[in-house]
Amino acid sequence: MRSNLRIGVVGATGAVGAITLDLLRERGYDAVRAFASARSAGSTLDGLTVEEATPETLGVGDLELCLFSVGTAASRELVPLAAAGGALCIDKSAAFRLQEGIPLVVPEVNGDRAHQNEGIVANPNCCSIPLAMTLAPIRDAVGLRRVRVATYQSASGAGAQAMDRLRRESSSDHDLRMDWEFDGVEFDEEEKIRAETRKILELPDLPVSATCVRVPVLVGHAEALWLETDTPLSSAEAREVLSEAPGLRIDEFPSPGKAVGVDEVLVGRIRRDTTVENGLALFVACDNLRKGAALNAIQIAELALRERSAA
Amino acid sequence: MRSNLRIGVVGATGAVGAITLDLLRERGYDAVRAFASARSAGSTLDGLTVEEATPETLGVGDLELCLFSVGTAASRELVPLAAAGGALCIDKSAAFRLQEGIPLVVPEVNGDRAHQNEGIVANPNCCSIPLAMTLAPIRDAVGLRRVRVATYQSASGAGAQAMDRLRRESSSDHDLRMDWEFDGVEFDEEEKIRAETRKILELPDLPVSATCVRVPVLVGHAEALWLETDTPLSSAEAREVLSEAPGLRIDEFPSPGKAVGVDEVLVGRIRRDTTVENGLALFVACDNLRKGAALNAIQIAELALRERSAA
Repeated sequence: MRSNLRIGVVGATGAVGAITLDLLRERGYDAVRAFASARSAGSTLDGLTVEEATPETLGVGDLELCLFSVGTAASRELVPLAAAGGALCIDKSAAFRLQEGIPLVVPEVNGDRAHQNEGIVANPNCCSIPLAMTLAPIRDAVGLRRVRVATYQSASGAGAQAMDRLRRESSSDHDLRMDWEFDGVEFDEEEKIRAETRKILELPDLPVSATCVRVPVLVGHAEALWLETDTPLSSAEAREVLSEAPGLRIDEFPSPGKAVGVDEVLVGRIRRDTTVENGLALFVACDNLRKGAALNAIQIAELALRERSAA
Repeated sequence: MRSNLRIGVVGATGAVGAITLDLLRERGYDAVRAFASARSAGSTLDGLTVEEATPETLGVGDLELCLFSVGTAASRELVPLAAAGGALCIDKSAAFRLQEGIPLVVPEVNGDRAHQNEGIVANPNCCSIPLAMTLAPIRDAVGLRRVRVATYQSASGAGAQAMDRLRRESSSDHDLRMDWEFDGVEFDEEEKIRAETRKILELPDLPVSATCVRVPVLVGHAEALWLETDTPLSSAEAREVLSEAPGLRIDEFPSPGKAVGVDEVLVGRIRRDTTVENGLALFVACDNLRKGAALNAIQIAELALRERSAA
């Protein structure tokens, strides 16, 4: 992407927005504008005056790329207008992820899909990204039969307010949280992980069972995985396959603390699940604000706009 | 047990020891002595002068019951001496749990084993207790085929010093911990859960795969479970079975915070694991210092000494 690409960061005052601005600066983009709700408009953020995100400011056609990290309702309203105005929109909400015709992209897994957009590309949930990155190389090597995942999700996945709440609390009050909507038998978060993983991996029937738990950690998500493969894969072979996969880094004992500020997804504790024939157990950790959100979205944009730049 | 039973609490200054003294007082036992290492000997604890735990103080035969919550090495040395002196010893370390001929007891599951002791009864690991209590009624109803468990273990499971460390840390430093010995492909904690669950449930070949994780919570362990049964059990039937099981309490969303100070194990999020034919997923939480340790040990003693009192 050109360094003077006209980029709008929408939701710039949130936890993911802040990292997005950092990453864009690190990568040398110098025509960045910050947008947020009316409440924050007019304030200054990293030397940028925050503008109000409205149909008018975003839809007028003077942005080439919009990176959205706002709520689902706001995305539903604003993303189509910004896209109609000519901007490529990378949306981090759940608004468009499962919509047919809209690509849901993890560059290392299905980067080719990024080009097949009509102005909108969806960024997966912060748990789905490391999960898909870990599963894809296994799928390619030996096929995937079923997946079970227990999550250890940090407060930052629920936004800056949840982080403030955790910082304020004395450690004696710390408790696991269950702060997702409960829909039928599963949290909406659990249903998202299943549906998004199937779409990203292009395995529409992959059996996935997720248990999502919020832990009193500020930044960094972890996941305990059990997976069954179509044909056998020893733990040594799995380690080999995963060590060669893009975006993954082998770590003996991944943890959120180790993953913070790191671009790669840490994968470790790779061992046989001895309860079944072709079973593997492993543990992954990922900076949910970077690769789980801001970084993945920027990588999608860089991939999708490579063609445009070349054209 | 008689209220004037001569009881020694060994390891009285630790996290579990403190709860043990509380529970004994609540239950009306008034001939309790506190023992700890030389470092704490002479200090006062809840009105008791702490005595040094030595082969001499514990082995002389003036105690009828000894509740041990000390390290494995100390238990290995002291428990047999106290037992030889005539005390019934309930040991909470790993020293004797898997030793043939020594019962490993969760009163609600295999309470009959408590009587079959030769002076020593082992108390299971704080994760094995709620797990066995949840699995036993399912085993009885439809048979168990395999079990996977991801743990969310609090700092108190690693003792009072780990709790102090967590209290001192600012929340920004919080991270998942991996503080067990790593033995081959599994943490020793994971191997313990498998071996102890098999012994308690008397299912020596039950396939169990555990992933153990320490979370920055002070008190209260939680576990995400996936289990497969021999014959089908709907989530409604599972809920029914579990709601009737002793020591369990159904809670829609169990969490450590809800479990603290509660005698029962909280069981909830009971749903089908749709990735397999006879699969169930559920989530449990338990006060690891109470039912996971101190309370379970006292319940074992009350059960084992009921016969003696009656005799």
